[in-house]
Amino acid sequence: MIPMGYGNARRFLAKLAGPAAPEGWQGGLPFQYRVGPGPARLRLKVRSERGAGALHPIWNTFGIIRGTTYPDEWVVVGAHRDAWSPGAGDNVSGTVTVLETARAFAALARAALRPARTVVFVTWDAEEWGLMGSTEWVEELEDSVNAHVVAYINEDDVASGTRFAAAASPSLKPLIRDLTHYVPEPGGHGTVYDAWLREGLSDTSALRLDNLGGGSDFAAFTHHLGIPSASVSFGSLNGVYHSMYDSYAWMTRFGDRGYRAHRAVAQLVSLAVARLANAPILPLDCAALGGELAGYVTDLDSNLAARHWSVPTAALLTALTRLAAAGQAFAAARDSALADDLPAVRAAQVNRWLMQVERRLTRPQGLVSRPWNRSLEFASDVDNGYSTMAFPSVNEAIRFADPSTAERELADLVNHVDQAREAIEQATAALR
Amino acid sequence: MIPMGYGNARRFLAKLAGPAAPEGWQGGLPFQYRVGPGPARLRLKVRSERGAGALHPIWNTFGIIRGTTYPDEWVVVGAHRDAWSPGAGDNVSGTVTVLETARAFAALARAALRPARTVVFVTWDAEEWGLMGSTEWVEELEDSVNAHVVAYINEDDVASGTRFAAAASPSLKPLIRDLTHYVPEPGGHGTVYDAWLREGLSDTSALRLDNLGGGSDFAAFTHHLGIPSASVSFGSLNGVYHSMYDSYAWMTRFGDRGYRAHRAVAQLVSLAVARLANAPILPLDCAALGGELAGYVTDLDSNLAARHWSVPTAALLTALTRLAAAGQAFAAARDSALADDLPAVRAAQVNRWLMQVERRLTRPQGLVSRPWNRSLEFASDVDNGYSTMAFPSVNEAIRFADPSTAERELADLVNHVDQAREAIEQATAALR
Repeated sequence: MIPMGYGNARRFLAKLAGPAAPEGWQGGLPFQYRVGPGPARLRLKVRSERGAGALHPIWNTFGIIRGTTYPDEWVVVGAHRDAWSPGAGDNVSGTVTVLETARAFAALARAALRPARTVVFVTWDAEEWGLMGSTEWVEELEDSVNAHVVAYINEDDVASGTRFAAAASPSLKPLIRDLTHYVPEPGGHGTVYDAWLREGLSDTSALRLDNLGGGSDFAAFTHHLGIPSASVSFGSLNGVYHSMYDSYAWMTRFGDRGYRAHRAVAQLVSLAVARLANAPILPLDCAALGGELAGYVTDLDSNLAARHWSVPTAALLTALTRLAAAGQAFAAARDSALADDLPAVRAAQVNRWLMQVERRLTRPQGLVSRPWNRSLEFASDVDNGYSTMAFPSVNEAIRFADPSTAERELADLVNHVDQAREAIEQATAALR
Repeated sequence: MIPMGYGNARRFLAKLAGPAAPEGWQGGLPFQYRVGPGPARLRLKVRSERGAGALHPIWNTFGIIRGTTYPDEWVVVGAHRDAWSPGAGDNVSGTVTVLETARAFAALARAALRPARTVVFVTWDAEEWGLMGSTEWVEELEDSVNAHVVAYINEDDVASGTRFAAAASPSLKPLIRDLTHYVPEPGGHGTVYDAWLREGLSDTSALRLDNLGGGSDFAAFTHHLGIPSASVSFGSLNGVYHSMYDSYAWMTRFGDRGYRAHRAVAQLVSLAVARLANAPILPLDCAALGGELAGYVTDLDSNLAARHWSVPTAALLTALTRLAAAGQAFAAARDSALADDLPAVRAAQVNRWLMQVERRLTRPQGLVSRPWNRSLEFASDVDNGYSTMAFPSVNEAIRFADPSTAERELADLVNHVDQAREAIEQATAALR
């Protein structure tokens, strides 16, 4: 996406005739937006690269600190390094967040405080060209990523304002939410949590973390392989995205004066990595996973009702409720095992099972619409790469297919949820 | 190892004085062998490569047929392609065995009979320089090899005579033994089994398959990662090993006239790959694994007795007996599940557990003597790379350490055997 200034845009938009644009498309320029076609004719000058000259090597960079106790469990934190524009926000901000986090962990390592798990600090190339750097890496090293990566933290355009926002796999949301209590808000006197609460509703239950859409480098980790992922950021309503205004000058004077959001996001990411890398049992909340997913069943119900299909979703709700209960039982067993000083070799076995939970909400053949998208938990909306769709195999059957396909997809999803629950139960058994 | 003709050898051996050589070192030359030192002085002319000129690229070659039903389960069959000498036996014979097997599977694939599992046909480079080609590949792709390889068949110097010999992981021995009933003996009128029986004792129980030592490319698969491996071959007592006599002329006139052993070994390997690639449940015999390993406990006992240590091995024997019983229970459950037409998705889950069984007889830190050797089941003898040692962690503690170390290693081994048994039990549960 390349934005255009309003002065240029009005020259095109004002000359469009035809039907009025839908209400949501009407922008701020002082005339009725219309959808065309014509009568304005647009000449687009395209400078394209062809042949061998169009091939460019891309480079991901890696810094690795090997874990002391669980070296085969990897926490990956990454940001794309390429940019459409000067990219002070998108994505110098994410890149320096990864570098600052690496600097903090390097200082700890020099002080003989190496993390228990291996931490991989990455900058990705060619994100703006289709998430290429991260996708190629995950695809090429799929077996290693599957075997080792316990969580992925993505940082993309993370400090263009002071308003906290985060998106995460449901199992990681409680961790992210908790961390906001420990970091000062950028430019204020309270914590990030306080500011979040102040800017949101006064009811804490309304402080929602988003789900991960398809617009950044977490996609290969979470939508392709089912690896728990998260992103934390501070933002604002501004128009600089992907434009020449996303510059050092803008960032310094308007976006993040004093670089306080940059500092806060690096602190949040460092804490997230520290918890993920050092907690003996991976801080993945399976009760939250089951609970949140159970909440999305009502959306399924209303999508089915809109089609006037009578397809029962009760089995899915039951399976997710049982998964949440298994998650609660696990958490209780975990807490008492940790109080009893769980040996590391036992913890590693528990973690191997925990790693399976969300991986089991994938299927090898992926979605009918997009085989690469193996997650049955979330996908980007096939019509909008930035937005998220829960239960995509079922929702796409509702949108594109028929009741019997939807029913079959529901049964398949229930089967995967049951397998994920079994992994939680195995994790609980491994605690003993 | 580079052999020397007797005419040259006698010029050195006859001039050695000093104490008489141990009985086992006395060779066929007509004088008393002595161990020196001197008085003969030997001038060895060494032409060594140094610097950049000493670095040579090595090349492994791969041919892959993707499986139809279980593409993520790989059967690997390989042979080293390099040689010390002309290498008609070592290892043109193994190389052409792999190529012939590939040719057979390619013909089947062209006839739309592709294998259910993926089959990988490999020729390794630099085996004679320290198993380099296979080791580098397995180490570099460790996660993929761990995730996918169900068995490895190695072919090294396999047709220098007509006497059948085979070595295999205990879980693969029943398969190999069975296949000998289906292949004609080279140059005879019966089967390979008949010839084996005739040349061996008349008691079939004496037809033993060897265990895998450290001298060829199976080492990275089985001793490093615990992947079931096997090797079948035909041989003879001959002196050409690693000499200039291991040539086309020798092979054609003496080693394998008419290339009948070559043909038989290719047939055996093709059958082994076909069974491994097509049986819905992997043909790994866990009862045989437990039974054979239980037999080696008496060797441990006598090694302990020789040291006059009182270290009890009863727990190991119990654990192995239970593993064998779990293997029998699995086999019974498998047979009835197969009779009921087990769905492929269920079979894949069973196979994932079966793949874990021997992998669980490894430990990440390996042996005290050699961390690379992760298998607790077998290792090459640290003093003789060609011979095999069962229970190496315990046996090396007996040889090099003290009773309490031996006791600790025994307890660790029992723990791994129990974990392997749990994998068998999970496989049984997955059948239902």
